[in-house]
Amino acid sequence: MVFIGVVGPFATLPQLIKLYFTHSQHATGQSLLSWSLYAALSFLWFAYGLVVGKLPIYVGNGISMVLNILMVLGILIHAGMTY
Amino acid sequence: MVFIGVVGPFATLPQLIKLYFTHSQHATGQSLLSWSLYAALSFLWFAYGLVVGKLPIYVGNGISMVLNILMVLGILIHAGMTY
Repeated sequence: MVFIGVVGPFATLPQLIKLYFTHSQHATGQSLLSWSLYAALSFLWFAYGLVVGKLPIYVGNGISMVLNILMVLGILIHAGMTY
Repeated sequence: MVFIGVVGPFATLPQLIKLYFTHSQHATGQSLLSWSLYAALSFLWFAYGLVVGKLPIYVGNGISMVLNILMVLGILIHAGMTY
């Protein structure tokens, strides 16, 4: 499960490539609300992992947090305010 | 963290509403690869939660799994094969 916790966050990479590079014109189809919640939740898990000193939790969720924030920024850049 | 584990999965609902109802024409901007990985990973966490008998893990990831599979199906229905 440690393997999944570390590899899982990178699952967002294809979605980031579509949002920023190949399918930016479809950015409005991305949910700002969903990705903001993912970013907030991964931040909470990241902080929790740091507090309890569990490396697989804070590394995996730290990477997720960065990628989720990039999704939020990409939606704001390419689609503006949406839900 | 149990609260987050249960509430978190529902973060995907706005994204599902956009994909199925309000922004289906932008479905091609969704990454089939990313959502398939999310579905696979949530299935693994769901199965892990069942095996170790941790309700917050299998309930939260079970809900995630269902919503992620709905995202995969929605992308296939509205955008067809993509990456």
